Amino acid sequence: MMKHVLGAQCIRCGKLWEALPDITTCPHCGGLLDIRYDYAAIAKEVSHETMAARQEQSMWRYMEYLPVLGKGSRPRLRVGWSPFYRAEGLANALGLRELYIKDDGVNPTASLKDRASAMAVVKAEEAGAEIIACSSTGNAASSLAGNAAAAGFPTYIFVPSRAPKGKVSQLMIFGAHVISVKSSYEDTFRLSQQAIETYGWYNRNAAINPYLMEGKKTVALEIAEQLGWKMTDYVALSVGDGCTIAGVWKGFKDLYATGMIDRLPRLISVQAEGCCPLNRAIREGTDWQPMEENTLADSIAVGVPRNAEKALNAILESGGVVVDVSDEEILAAARLLGRTCGVFGEPAGVAGTAGVKKAVELGLIDRNASVVSIVTGNGLKDTPNAIKAAGEPVAIDPDMGQLLAVMDEL
Amino acid sequence: MMKHVLGAQCIRCGKLWEALPDITTCPHCGGLLDIRYDYAAIAKEVSHETMAARQEQSMWRYMEYLPVLGKGSRPRLRVGWSPFYRAEGLANALGLRELYIKDDGVNPTASLKDRASAMAVVKAEEAGAEIIACSSTGNAASSLAGNAAAAGFPTYIFVPSRAPKGKVSQLMIFGAHVISVKSSYEDTFRLSQQAIETYGWYNRNAAINPYLMEGKKTVALEIAEQLGWKMTDYVALSVGDGCTIAGVWKGFKDLYATGMIDRLPRLISVQAEGCCPLNRAIREGTDWQPMEENTLADSIAVGVPRNAEKALNAILESGGVVVDVSDEEILAAARLLGRTCGVFGEPAGVAGTAGVKKAVELGLIDRNASVVSIVTGNGLKDTPNAIKAAGEPVAIDPDMGQLLAVMDEL
Repeated sequence: MMKHVLGAQCIRCGKLWEALPDITTCPHCGGLLDIRYDYAAIAKEVSHETMAARQEQSMWRYMEYLPVLGKGSRPRLRVGWSPFYRAEGLANALGLRELYIKDDGVNPTASLKDRASAMAVVKAEEAGAEIIACSSTGNAASSLAGNAAAAGFPTYIFVPSRAPKGKVSQLMIFGAHVISVKSSYEDTFRLSQQAIETYGWYNRNAAINPYLMEGKKTVALEIAEQLGWKMTDYVALSVGDGCTIAGVWKGFKDLYATGMIDRLPRLISVQAEGCCPLNRAIREGTDWQPMEENTLADSIAVGVPRNAEKALNAILESGGVVVDVSDEEILAAARLLGRTCGVFGEPAGVAGTAGVKKAVELGLIDRNASVVSIVTGNGLKDTPNAIKAAGEPVAIDPDMGQLLAVMDEL
Repeated sequence: MMKHVLGAQCIRCGKLWEALPDITTCPHCGGLLDIRYDYAAIAKEVSHETMAARQEQSMWRYMEYLPVLGKGSRPRLRVGWSPFYRAEGLANALGLRELYIKDDGVNPTASLKDRASAMAVVKAEEAGAEIIACSSTGNAASSLAGNAAAAGFPTYIFVPSRAPKGKVSQLMIFGAHVISVKSSYEDTFRLSQQAIETYGWYNRNAAINPYLMEGKKTVALEIAEQLGWKMTDYVALSVGDGCTIAGVWKGFKDLYATGMIDRLPRLISVQAEGCCPLNRAIREGTDWQPMEENTLADSIAVGVPRNAEKALNAILESGGVVVDVSDEEILAAARLLGRTCGVFGEPAGVAGTAGVKKAVELGLIDRNASVVSIVTGNGLKDTPNAIKAAGEPVAIDPDMGQLLAVMDEL
């Protein structure tokens, strides 16, 4: 709650600003802001026992850690507290001792981004805003459209024209005003920023709005609690803009700083081989450079990550591992997750699991390690790539003879 | 739990059989079976207070009412305890006093059918089965594929070739052996029954397997609890095979018989104008007759409902209302739900809401009534129909001039 918020601190110049609900970048130097908390005060109010007694089964379960006055007065979707599975079959398939899947595709609009959008809607209400806008590769857009529709906010949403049909259909059903931009995500982002300045809309652009990461971090809080507050060695997830991995790291650090977990996991940052500016920078020990967006995993096809600084810092600070995966490895991971866990992720959603598999194979992580892999979005958002991954069924007439012939083949 | 189960009773000849885990139809007359409980014994073990104290947030929260030895020893998906919303915006749009949405599209494989499939997997384990099979218009299939994959059961699944891509992609990702039948659902069903007999697979065909309805009834148990055990006047849902509405009614009756609710709601049975054999029978006071399957709502395009008897009985016993909706009304309801609630349902999923709208307009239900509308499946399962409902976005170059021109139009 806001009483625990010290302010919004610039990660570049270090200045601490009042955490106004519509604050974006540093008024002094333009750097990204980070919401800072009074951890000692939070620590006094939380414990494993108080958490266990809570009835709230959503991201708002963790109010002490959230920069909001409350949950807002408007109707809202039930976001978060997504399923968490011990994945023994998949662990066996990967030759890994202990593996867990956090299925964030089971959210109201079917991705982890619901956490950020639910936060944006609450902050927009606090700011007295009337319209919310964002640009997105797809999931931030559809989650904003859904969460804003529930709360009665109109939205203006900018997507690159390559966004999958599933995500676009969500936007249209939720009644967003959608501008499909015939260019890259970078160009889409830039146009949205111009429009937001021109029209004065509430800005739900990731990185630019420091509150979104605070929503995303709730996935880390849930993982820790679902593990019984005993952290695994690693947490793996796919990385595009960098906001999610930065948020996940913030969540674990918040818990560590308040005594709720006694060690921090190392992050496994998974990017696509065709678009891995952040992983490349870590590997080469250089500044990050823009890349082309060559991957079918649209949600992480981000050549110019908006939150590079926080993401790189998170990976380095955690002693993290970076792995790039090919599109073929991503599709194989989709099949593997489906067949061993009954979990269906979109390409970017399963890329984290593809990265875990590869990290084991390359010896980047030990087979005795314990790992959580976050599935960030639902496979139903991108049916064509699922069919590319798993094929189409055999079709027959309603005839037992034809069936017997097919059974011999299967 | 099984200690509360009296047996499986034939709804035709009345004979009571031992509730073996693989029992299907009546061994005496071939009628459908209904699981019977010792309500007095259940009533002694449950109360509003004991329920409120439970941590389990899934369909297994209600073990006293379920015909199982336990939750099984295999891994399982987290099914049930789906979101429940007071829908004030939608109520206003319909001119209705009090309306709630139960969003069962937020389930692991994105439909209410997960409840039946989770049950089937537990009963298959109890029966010592090795393979599970079913036929389905889509959702029963994809839910069986997912729940069985998590539990490590191979599946053989029969779908009519018209099943939407989204659902088929789920089957393939989950590794089911899929037989796509180039004919009606009726023919598909018949072929699956032949194959199940030939190969001795565990039978997860709705109606035939009496346990599935017991899984489906958990949606009613949740609705009652999420309403604070104060039932609304009506509960609306779309009807195809008839198993879901029969299950919902069974759930409410179980609660009523054990003193957990003090009145029963009336059911609103919604079918498509192009395929409404059950509603037509009620309206005309005659036996039901097969119909063509002329609707884009694939999940309820069932010309020969397999559970007609239980469904008709449920509607009549509840003093129910029957409403048929056109495909246009279904698509309009998809937009309306999305825009007012942030809930995205597939065509059959929103048909219930379309029916509520029409029932209000026709004066079949009073504007002062309170209604729960169940959304039975996620809109992401059928993207093409969502786009048909809501259109496609405007596409522009990344250029502020073009944007300004578009803004004038929006």
